[in-house]
Amino acid sequence: MGKLNEQRVEYIVQAILTDYEDNRAINKRDIYNRPDKKAIIEIVEKLMMIIYPGYYGDNIYRSYSLKNNMSAAIEDVIYHLHKQIMVVLRYTLETENNSEVEERAETITYDFMEKIPQIRAFLDTDIQAAFDGDPAAKSKDEVILSYPGMYAISVYRIAHELFLLDVPMIPRIMTEHAHSVTGIDIHPGAEIGRFFFTDHGTGIVIGETTVIGEHVKIYQGVTLGGLSTKGGQKLKGIKRHPTLMDNVTVYSNSSILGGETVIEENVVVGGNAFVTESVARDSRVTVKAQELQVKNKR
Amino acid sequence: MGKLNEQRVEYIVQAILTDYEDNRAINKRDIYNRPDKKAIIEIVEKLMMIIYPGYYGDNIYRSYSLKNNMSAAIEDVIYHLHKQIMVVLRYTLETENNSEVEERAETITYDFMEKIPQIRAFLDTDIQAAFDGDPAAKSKDEVILSYPGMYAISVYRIAHELFLLDVPMIPRIMTEHAHSVTGIDIHPGAEIGRFFFTDHGTGIVIGETTVIGEHVKIYQGVTLGGLSTKGGQKLKGIKRHPTLMDNVTVYSNSSILGGETVIEENVVVGGNAFVTESVARDSRVTVKAQELQVKNKR
Amino acid sequence: MGKLNEQRVEYIVQAILTDYEDNRAINKRDIYNRPDKKAIIEIVEKLMMIIYPGYYGDNIYRSYSLKNNMSAAIEDVIYHLHKQIMVVLRYTLETENNSEVEERAETITYDFMEKIPQIRAFLDTDIQAAFDGDPAAKSKDEVILSYPGMYAISVYRIAHELFLLDVPMIPRIMTEHAHSVTGIDIHPGAEIGRFFFTDHGTGIVIGETTVIGEHVKIYQGVTLGGLSTKGGQKLKGIKRHPTLMDNVTVYSNSSILGGETVIEENVVVGGNAFVTESVARDSRVTVKAQELQVKNKR
Repeated sequence: MGKLNEQRVEYIVQAILTDYEDNRAINKRDIYNRPDKKAIIEIVEKLMMIIYPGYYGDNIYRSYSLKNNMSAAIEDVIYHLHKQIMVVLRYTLETENNSEVEERAETITYDFMEKIPQIRAFLDTDIQAAFDGDPAAKSKDEVILSYPGMYAISVYRIAHELFLLDVPMIPRIMTEHAHSVTGIDIHPGAEIGRFFFTDHGTGIVIGETTVIGEHVKIYQGVTLGGLSTKGGQKLKGIKRHPTLMDNVTVYSNSSILGGETVIEENVVVGGNAFVTESVARDSRVTVKAQELQVKNKR
Repeated sequence: MGKLNEQRVEYIVQAILTDYEDNRAINKRDIYNRPDKKAIIEIVEKLMMIIYPGYYGDNIYRSYSLKNNMSAAIEDVIYHLHKQIMVVLRYTLETENNSEVEERAETITYDFMEKIPQIRAFLDTDIQAAFDGDPAAKSKDEVILSYPGMYAISVYRIAHELFLLDVPMIPRIMTEHAHSVTGIDIHPGAEIGRFFFTDHGTGIVIGETTVIGEHVKIYQGVTLGGLSTKGGQKLKGIKRHPTLMDNVTVYSNSSILGGETVIEENVVVGGNAFVTESVARDSRVTVKAQELQVKNKR
Repeated sequence: MGKLNEQRVEYIVQAILTDYEDNRAINKRDIYNRPDKKAIIEIVEKLMMIIYPGYYGDNIYRSYSLKNNMSAAIEDVIYHLHKQIMVVLRYTLETENNSEVEERAETITYDFMEKIPQIRAFLDTDIQAAFDGDPAAKSKDEVILSYPGMYAISVYRIAHELFLLDVPMIPRIMTEHAHSVTGIDIHPGAEIGRFFFTDHGTGIVIGETTVIGEHVKIYQGVTLGGLSTKGGQKLKGIKRHPTLMDNVTVYSNSSILGGETVIEENVVVGGNAFVTESVARDSRVTVKAQELQVKNKR
């Protein structure tokens, strides 16, 4: 293609530009009122450096002067997070008053930043749970540096605090980033107690209105989901996902569904189970011996 | 390692260079006849900006002069896509005539670009389906920006048009990129109607010869696959994957297998089902109450 | 936020700095004794270029002078790998003697690099297995360039050699990177024979003490895992994961669990099976016809 076929290119450009002109969702171009996904992912990465000062830091933060470096990192997050929150608040605030939006975003940003020590306190218990729970873990350093479950729960705990502060869109963009990296999909609206462990994690789905106690273990492929999504938007706001109380363990590929399903303390749910009713404390739920057929092929 | 142990390094280099010398697939080094994965992923990202002008654009495209910017983006895609198509056409065209390859690649590139408005029309229906289908969706903007299913179906719809134009390798590299980002694996050969919804999506596999109607919903962990791959390369070209007609819903972790399996209109397939036979319209398929054993552990 | 609210920022910075001061795992800041995740991922990418000289190379390596370029790439890997191994050896070596650590790291680095031709010999058989096993594969080039299973097995075969040389942490960081990219989680401690094929792969988990023979095929969502992780750290070192002998095929979403479970030669395990006992050679294991209930919704 020494030179472009100008006529055909012009035709293509015109066709696409014309296609932008109607009112479909795909055509919204009011881009200053839309959060910047890349900026939000950078905020997540900087928050990871602040939360794990020795692990996720790059060279900028590797200096004797921890205080100066951290001040810089924290101010950086405040600046960019405030900017993104301003953008998304316009979705839900009823005012068009710019300084009102700005102030509200400022309050939320500071309120969130003050939660960081609490987020870290929770994550420290999750590290402990992962180390205690996995015989393949050689050290807590290995857990922090290489376990996808640690990344997913860290981003979830960040996003959850923003969710509680009624920030639209940003929390979900954050947890979907973690989902993309780890295969673990935790909705920022879920409530998850301390000492949470997910191990390999690929395929885990934890729905928006799930409630999880302390010392809970969830293995790969587990869905904590809704019974049916047939109601669609009409179900918004209703508790659609289950409750798991303290010390519950759910083995791989099991599904626990429904907003009224409560799995009480100390219950163990075996692999591949499909649970849609509540289970009393101290029980073990297993699929009744699945009958396997073994045939000689010769 | 103040300095390298030159003798051992030399030995290692020699051993590896010698290892390159035979005719195994792993040793093919004819790199000018091989598509550039990074370039193809960049083409995908630019096509996403063209398809969603307000969402995926970075600052270059955020200007009042939409026409100029989009012309530039479109010409850019045409240039790079043409280049990559030329490379891969050499796999299948029987000519060595360079200008013939160049012309064929040019026609394909323009034909593909003219499909963009049609791709956008389909994707607009997918956005609607995701918003309608998920009570956790707060806005269509959130769907476009954060739902992995939207990314996967967008890349699939791009790749499928290239597949229909008989472009080798590039469509699969595109959908495998989306698979890596989302955990959703849609073969570019599959046929998927409008208003398609996949929700969380992790673990979804949709095989090459699958046919899917309109308003179909597929949840996480669903396989639309072949019954057996024992035949290997001998099965190439045969319909090996199922057909799902309009308004079918398949809940999480179910598998529907086989090229002659047809799931007719309005069927709902419950979670964890293993379906290898056709199902008549308006039916609900569920696994017969799985017997769970609940034992008190104390 | 024209300017930051200095008082509140100072308060937040102080709160976080204070939070760093105790002895929790999350606060370890001894960053010179911690491996650099980004550097390790770069080592993996460079090793991929060395292993697949025609596929993963970027322009630097695309020159007529293969020898010079490969020498440079190899020296680069040696330098950076040695550096990272020195860091992690301090976790396990009982000496603080720096030159002893340096020398041990050097020996390991060279020993590993000498394994590259053997790693390539194994991977060439895996390419063959993927091409033979998948009717959708159009060419071996497509397999190498776009199949996630090839990426996962490649990184595993690299990491496994480092694991055998008793390198801490680095192997796991490598395979977790591949897990993030592909959704396939193979522990570097597993032993996997030649001609291994994983196809789509999302959700595959292969535990640390798994042993796999030659010509084995594993489909998406398969877990080769432990029976229970209740014992936690006390189970370290014990064989907890199954053995699969030559020519075994395991279809999607099946789980094979337990360290004493042996699946003998030529066994085929159907989809969605849950296997916790050994299976004799030449058998086919299927879930006994799962009873599906089909109800007319009208």
